[in-house]
Amino acid sequence: MYNFRTDLALERRDLYKKANNIEKEVDGIETTEEKIGEDITVSKVKILNENGENAIGKKKGNYITIDIKNLKIASEDEIQKASEVVTKELKDIINNLVSPEDPILIVGLGNLYVTPDALGPRVVQDIDITRHILEYMPNVLEQGTRSVSAVSPGVLGTTGIETLEILKGIVDNIKPKLIIVIDALASRSIARISSTIQIADTGIVPGAGVGNARKELTINTLGIPVIAMGVPTCVEAATIAADSLDLFIQKVQEEAQSNDFLNKLQDEDKYEMIKEVLAPQDYNFIVTPKEIDELIENMSSVVARGINFAIQK
Amino acid sequence: MYNFRTDLALERRDLYKKANNIEKEVDGIETTEEKIGEDITVSKVKILNENGENAIGKKKGNYITIDIKNLKIASEDEIQKASEVVTKELKDIINNLVSPEDPILIVGLGNLYVTPDALGPRVVQDIDITRHILEYMPNVLEQGTRSVSAVSPGVLGTTGIETLEILKGIVDNIKPKLIIVIDALASRSIARISSTIQIADTGIVPGAGVGNARKELTINTLGIPVIAMGVPTCVEAATIAADSLDLFIQKVQEEAQSNDFLNKLQDEDKYEMIKEVLAPQDYNFIVTPKEIDELIENMSSVVARGINFAIQK
Amino acid sequence: MYNFRTDLALERRDLYKKANNIEKEVDGIETTEEKIGEDITVSKVKILNENGENAIGKKKGNYITIDIKNLKIASEDEIQKASEVVTKELKDIINNLVSPEDPILIVGLGNLYVTPDALGPRVVQDIDITRHILEYMPNVLEQGTRSVSAVSPGVLGTTGIETLEILKGIVDNIKPKLIIVIDALASRSIARISSTIQIADTGIVPGAGVGNARKELTINTLGIPVIAMGVPTCVEAATIAADSLDLFIQKVQEEAQSNDFLNKLQDEDKYEMIKEVLAPQDYNFIVTPKEIDELIENMSSVVARGINFAIQK
Amino acid sequence: MYNFRTDLALERRDLYKKANNIEKEVDGIETTEEKIGEDITVSKVKILNENGENAIGKKKGNYITIDIKNLKIASEDEIQKASEVVTKELKDIINNLVSPEDPILIVGLGNLYVTPDALGPRVVQDIDITRHILEYMPNVLEQGTRSVSAVSPGVLGTTGIETLEILKGIVDNIKPKLIIVIDALASRSIARISSTIQIADTGIVPGAGVGNARKELTINTLGIPVIAMGVPTCVEAATIAADSLDLFIQKVQEEAQSNDFLNKLQDEDKYEMIKEVLAPQDYNFIVTPKEIDELIENMSSVVARGINFAIQK
Repeated sequence: MYNFRTDLALERRDLYKKANNIEKEVDGIETTEEKIGEDITVSKVKILNENGENAIGKKKGNYITIDIKNLKIASEDEIQKASEVVTKELKDIINNLVSPEDPILIVGLGNLYVTPDALGPRVVQDIDITRHILEYMPNVLEQGTRSVSAVSPGVLGTTGIETLEILKGIVDNIKPKLIIVIDALASRSIARISSTIQIADTGIVPGAGVGNARKELTINTLGIPVIAMGVPTCVEAATIAADSLDLFIQKVQEEAQSNDFLNKLQDEDKYEMIKEVLAPQDYNFIVTPKEIDELIENMSSVVARGINFAIQK
Repeated sequence: MYNFRTDLALERRDLYKKANNIEKEVDGIETTEEKIGEDITVSKVKILNENGENAIGKKKGNYITIDIKNLKIASEDEIQKASEVVTKELKDIINNLVSPEDPILIVGLGNLYVTPDALGPRVVQDIDITRHILEYMPNVLEQGTRSVSAVSPGVLGTTGIETLEILKGIVDNIKPKLIIVIDALASRSIARISSTIQIADTGIVPGAGVGNARKELTINTLGIPVIAMGVPTCVEAATIAADSLDLFIQKVQEEAQSNDFLNKLQDEDKYEMIKEVLAPQDYNFIVTPKEIDELIENMSSVVARGINFAIQK
Repeated sequence: MYNFRTDLALERRDLYKKANNIEKEVDGIETTEEKIGEDITVSKVKILNENGENAIGKKKGNYITIDIKNLKIASEDEIQKASEVVTKELKDIINNLVSPEDPILIVGLGNLYVTPDALGPRVVQDIDITRHILEYMPNVLEQGTRSVSAVSPGVLGTTGIETLEILKGIVDNIKPKLIIVIDALASRSIARISSTIQIADTGIVPGAGVGNARKELTINTLGIPVIAMGVPTCVEAATIAADSLDLFIQKVQEEAQSNDFLNKLQDEDKYEMIKEVLAPQDYNFIVTPKEIDELIENMSSVVARGINFAIQK
Repeated sequence: MYNFRTDLALERRDLYKKANNIEKEVDGIETTEEKIGEDITVSKVKILNENGENAIGKKKGNYITIDIKNLKIASEDEIQKASEVVTKELKDIINNLVSPEDPILIVGLGNLYVTPDALGPRVVQDIDITRHILEYMPNVLEQGTRSVSAVSPGVLGTTGIETLEILKGIVDNIKPKLIIVIDALASRSIARISSTIQIADTGIVPGAGVGNARKELTINTLGIPVIAMGVPTCVEAATIAADSLDLFIQKVQEEAQSNDFLNKLQDEDKYEMIKEVLAPQDYNFIVTPKEIDELIENMSSVVARGINFAIQK
């Protein structure tokens, strides 16, 4: 399959359309877009069948993308407004999957000590937990409060344990009816870094379509539905460079200065070649705004509030 | 049972002896002490039978206390030396319980976002994890490397889940043969704050002897042996005040200025009365050095290095 | 002078009245109190003359104390409401001292790396700075925007330089007309920890009344008026213990079980005796809530917003 | 002047040689290189005259570059070894400029809250300060201890004050004889991120050669010699993309598939074109390793220890 180098269904569908010169919609995919005020756009990608799945390498289901402009300099009011959009979309998905009092487990993926990967654990920190209160002091809560618990299981590199292995045990012991997973994603566009939230009702399938299904966090592996909330926090450095090359060759062609060699190159993926040049060492080079610390803080607030209001009545 | 207000077996044994005017050793308890250089003292309390258990409310087993002077201003060398003492004592206990290649799970209890409670998660951050490397790239490790994994399960207040519920699931899934739990403790003595490590081969029994056994982290609940490494990081404010009152009445008596009323008070526990006075609100007031951030940092290094060298050959 | 062990004028005045059995107001001091809603109390202590100064060891001037209940669990709304009270009181004081466009320098005292001392630097982080924008891009700001700059000069122990030496140079170079200093204070009452703000128009006089005037941060040393905003973040451990002893002796007396010896003790200050017992090492033991990290975060928001709205129209 | 997009004299000299097809050394520049063990290389660039200055846009003086391999996974020993190389080179430069007991001021530039910019403030945190001890308790220090003080003045965006304005005042008040400034730099090579230290005896000249001399931190503006220690912590995203394009065109040429248009492009700087494409918003996009937090931590240790041993006998 094509290496999309993005986890966003919306970007994949755009890349697929461009690569295959498709003018209308891809067969098996439905898309809608809605603007909310000046700064927020909600796009919905629905993958309807296997054809849609194969086209963009994502499971059948719903993928909602919320783009928020200028989150870096967002005021308290704007953070609140953005979180309300998250609440609305998330609530619809939750209500489709479980009943109002069914217990939910929130899972913050990622490494707290690596800033662009810290979003999941930071969100968990701000979730309103009720499970232990319902157990030990139920009277202090309103009738009908949903049981909510949350964990940050860490990453394989620092725990030595697959996330699935940790979650399976917890699910067996505390028996939630739904899991909401928060994770940092890769995107193709630097404009989307910490400015976009994707909500999917299909769970998380790392290396989707490439096999390796054993480690996916989905209803198949965990036995209960999994909602995935993902936020792009970085772009691979090699992606930036490869995209620049594409733009460059395109420009050469437009000015009618191209030749057979360049035209052929245009159809190849320069990513692998560039990756080799860029990464002579074993680092994981990413492109990220210098202000990533602050962006992650604002985005964590949006996501945590969005969840807190969506999970209780 | 007497409210010792300390988790250290050594302090409990001293308090018990004093309260009961015991000159020699308590029946059912054995104690030894060794000085290592200028700054380190290793004390071992062995609880031999039920009498010892009842006396100080701790399970039958071994409790090793390592006191380190001046850790606040410790140089790199002194941190290294202290960690070597931890390694030596911990290694003996591990070798008594499991074979050299048996897998070990390290568990950092506590809340990373509350400084005096952050020791466990900070230590986990510095543990050398091997389990995933043994699984995916075994050739890069030396023959005979032990499988080591680690988690920081969070605290009930922020996860809504009992630590035992989380650990049980993980143990079922990854099947370690031994657990080492790191936790922050309460002590009676401010001199011991972040300067003492207690290593126990009995696991962790919160509210020991008071019932509530369901939540203990021991071989009884987890099915495998549990080593507990605890570091005092605070003293309850009410403990400080109550201890001051004791000293005061003692001084009055020494100067032969006491009276029946005071003498009677001396035998009571003033802790509850003081607690009420001190804590008009629902805070958890503690006495801690202003420099607690730095002390926790140094102590985390001592404990993490101590473990890293004890668990591999 | 009496060792008040508190930097709050309000607490000192209460202690002075009690110690001297004064029923009405202290000569040279005026006090008013106002409740704002359920959770906020504003008390104003005005020191009118030298008699007032000598009584409580504070300079002639205005000391406003804002007490906020339950700040630990404050919602976004409550933080906002508290900050508005700060804005109102601070604005009055600023308008008494300078004109609306006179430049202001904000100074965050304290050590960022020691949680109970980090309030000043954290507030500075959230101040809306305009001085450089007025200089380089004045058009992006509204007409009449005041020039605001801010520094966190660090503490003597980590810089080797007196705060006054650093500030003097900055004042000489950038010529503000007013300084607002934010600092963490000691208090007598644990209920006030990170729940009270004192605003004083007299600057900061460390060791007030004890001499050592060289290092005070006031109009005398800096040549421009200095507003001091102080927040209690800890109580000395010895203070807690000494206060407990006082309560204890009082109780003994009430029950008519006292004797001459105790009665005499009652009049002494037990603080020095206790300090010796408590502090066998060179730590600085303090009483602080375990939740200090979160409290400081909330209080920083209150103070920073309070300032931001007070300094611009 | 050519836009080098690097602050390292060594990289500039290499770029200049390449751009001008110079085989030997640039006129007015001298270079030496020395390998120390497996992992460390020390290169020295000496700019001898105006010709050298003009060639690479750096002031006459000495620029020492220390490259350290594999710092990310450095053990305690390797950090120590690297710091010893820093000590040796720094000591030589210091001894050329001042006498053994002349007071030194250490200045950590940068923003503590933006990880790739936090190196300066983090180093300052670990410097051994003596100035206040020499003043208040000289007897606890060895005879001949040098007076050392340190500040982190913050950045213009968060203080509203030029660094020079802050430092001038401090220099006037405490009168050091030498300043050592630590700063994060931009580099051309991702392999150098947090792996290289440049020590220069010429101070810091932002926008060197472009005018704007007013804000330089040098003997000209501060009146005393300034040593600059710089560590690359990021590469501009546009630099990565432009360099990739260069490599690409070079490859096309090598394969004899180029044409006049491409050949002409090769001589232009594609940086500005790419910058526009990359940065549609007002972020400051950088390329940095995901592991930057840990790299900065290790590099801070190397620099701080390097300084601590260089400044005292």
